[in-house]
Amino acid sequence: MKLSKQIMAMAHSPVKKYYVYANRAKMRGKKIYHLNIGQPDIKTPPEFMEAVRSFDEDVLAYSASEGMTETIDAQRRYYRRYHMDYSRSEIIITNGGSEALLFAMACIINPGDEIIIPEPYYTNYNLFTGIYGGKIVPVTTKAEEGYHYADKNKLKKAISPKTKAICLCNPGNPTGTALSKDEMKMICDLAVEHDFFIIADEVYREFCYDTDEILSFGQFEEASQNVIITDSISKRFSACGARIGSMATKNKDVYENAMKLAQARLCCPTLDQIGAVTLYDLPKDFFDKTKAEYNHRRNVAYHALQKIEGIVCEKPRGAFYITCKLPVKDAEDFLIWMLDDFEDRGESTMFVPAEGFYGTPGLGRDEIRLAYVLNEKDLLRGIELIKLGLKEYRR
Amino acid sequence: MKLSKQIMAMAHSPVKKYYVYANRAKMRGKKIYHLNIGQPDIKTPPEFMEAVRSFDEDVLAYSASEGMTETIDAQRRYYRRYHMDYSRSEIIITNGGSEALLFAMACIINPGDEIIIPEPYYTNYNLFTGIYGGKIVPVTTKAEEGYHYADKNKLKKAISPKTKAICLCNPGNPTGTALSKDEMKMICDLAVEHDFFIIADEVYREFCYDTDEILSFGQFEEASQNVIITDSISKRFSACGARIGSMATKNKDVYENAMKLAQARLCCPTLDQIGAVTLYDLPKDFFDKTKAEYNHRRNVAYHALQKIEGIVCEKPRGAFYITCKLPVKDAEDFLIWMLDDFEDRGESTMFVPAEGFYGTPGLGRDEIRLAYVLNEKDLLRGIELIKLGLKEYRR
Repeated sequence: MKLSKQIMAMAHSPVKKYYVYANRAKMRGKKIYHLNIGQPDIKTPPEFMEAVRSFDEDVLAYSASEGMTETIDAQRRYYRRYHMDYSRSEIIITNGGSEALLFAMACIINPGDEIIIPEPYYTNYNLFTGIYGGKIVPVTTKAEEGYHYADKNKLKKAISPKTKAICLCNPGNPTGTALSKDEMKMICDLAVEHDFFIIADEVYREFCYDTDEILSFGQFEEASQNVIITDSISKRFSACGARIGSMATKNKDVYENAMKLAQARLCCPTLDQIGAVTLYDLPKDFFDKTKAEYNHRRNVAYHALQKIEGIVCEKPRGAFYITCKLPVKDAEDFLIWMLDDFEDRGESTMFVPAEGFYGTPGLGRDEIRLAYVLNEKDLLRGIELIKLGLKEYRR
Repeated sequence: MKLSKQIMAMAHSPVKKYYVYANRAKMRGKKIYHLNIGQPDIKTPPEFMEAVRSFDEDVLAYSASEGMTETIDAQRRYYRRYHMDYSRSEIIITNGGSEALLFAMACIINPGDEIIIPEPYYTNYNLFTGIYGGKIVPVTTKAEEGYHYADKNKLKKAISPKTKAICLCNPGNPTGTALSKDEMKMICDLAVEHDFFIIADEVYREFCYDTDEILSFGQFEEASQNVIITDSISKRFSACGARIGSMATKNKDVYENAMKLAQARLCCPTLDQIGAVTLYDLPKDFFDKTKAEYNHRRNVAYHALQKIEGIVCEKPRGAFYITCKLPVKDAEDFLIWMLDDFEDRGESTMFVPAEGFYGTPGLGRDEIRLAYVLNEKDLLRGIELIKLGLKEYRR
């Protein structure tokens, strides 16, 4: 019995496949600093569990397929803070941002259709498009240019009659790039002109450090029929384990068809939706504090990385990742060596080789991604270990 | 911007599309008995919320993509009660049984591949197969034969070189059919001989009323490479809103490739997994009591239905549904009339027209599905209203 070609063509998560090495190192008593995964260490606001604990119905029943009205309304209130007016029938609550992406892709991709995505990109986009027979057309960016992709000519070259959408993680995982308002406007105009969707993965919306403005593709009325926003409470509220995300769109066709998918999987978890209501209603103060903390870590991490000889690293503008080029040939080999063979006072660091974030074969082999989701002390020590490791590895 | 052909070809849920009529009736003050949806009224065991409430970590973090070890182990203990020995790397915890079905189909379907499913069938199978370009080959069954499908010759006729799997809900939604051990063995032999998968949707496993034996396709060692079990705590433990299901298989290829899907969507909700552990560990007594209650309701509902003139209804053997043929031309028209125009002492009943459960166009137009998930009194009143309605409607 052969499996499907689509699933066989998919790779395992590049973030997860090195755990076997990390676990082996830990078994030997080595302490590993995890700069590899976007699991924030910021406390989940206690309001979440308070709301969950207060659930007192006899039956934990199905909720509505589109999401609980309370949860949808909480998200609408949150969007209104950023001047986006979504109605109840323009938002579907999903099992994390991941399901929102799966819904969006399932709605628009016919086998062979093309989705434009700047590379390096969040690797799960491979699966979210490939499982429906879609093809990613990567727009290559470079460490030396801070992974900037919002160049009209560059993007235009990627457009073909098969282009169904551009999919953008903004602010971006894995590079930390963030679009300016003008750049977003330019992308909206392209989408309208060439008649394709913008799948706006905005789960890091508030984490954009060099501006006070909170931007969203949902703010561009001229492209309201093109834009599909995928969102999540995971990073924003440090609630990754809740698995509550959403898809928002003013395109009625997309909403109606995504609802078929939502109905087929019945609903999202009831308790987590109840908890999510409290998160969306948190005061601005919460976002300000969280953003200030990540901004501080970004600066700390960036400056520490600058001190590594031979590194190529522009200052990222958003999210909580830094992708950079190391003075090594093969970052995967370096990582495995760091976990297997290197230690300083019994410690080493785990990061992600960036090759898996590229769609074009062979690119990114000397690049890595770090997540700055640890406290300052651990973050600095983690980067120091990379520096020490590099010195020894390059001998 | 055109949407994908696959999604456009899908219908909305036939269970959900009549709510607009029910809501209109309720707005006018009519009381509606909901025999239309499989939402059990049995209390969710309090152990679930107790475990959830006791969660006291600072960060609600991602759990493992395959599921929390504690949850996997609890399910393994549960399977062992039924003489099924699954290892930790043979079970993936999923977002409800729905996601398990999506994973199974994504792993095996190439566009154009065929999945054999007895009709009438759980309609969401349409989407779970169609979204990957799969084609359902229905094996037609009849009310007069109790919707029995486990006939070797009948099944063999449906097999073609494109057959990738047979997908069986056993005990079955919407018909309440249940396979005997011999019938399961026959299907296993067919799958092995013709080299296709058995997708065994066994979320109603314990609800099989005329036997003390608990059967599963996981008990047939000879077909262990063919069998993919999709499962859920929703119906078994009256915990539909938890969205915890699973996929179990001894086929290493299927497991490894389904893990790609699991990793891409990161994980299942942490709190609900913690709650699910307590459910799988409930003593046998819980299942016995729940089964006895549903068995009683089955008998009550069946006997009440028998008294309706012109009905065709064999006694179902499992799950908590009855599908039957009514003496009407068009059950959809009858339902809409029941909600819009009929009432007895201000009350009416909602059920599901069965046409949407058939893959073959035109079949099932005079059939309906009832779920016996209400207490005896409400169940009897709901069926009485159908009887009264039918009398008036047929005039």
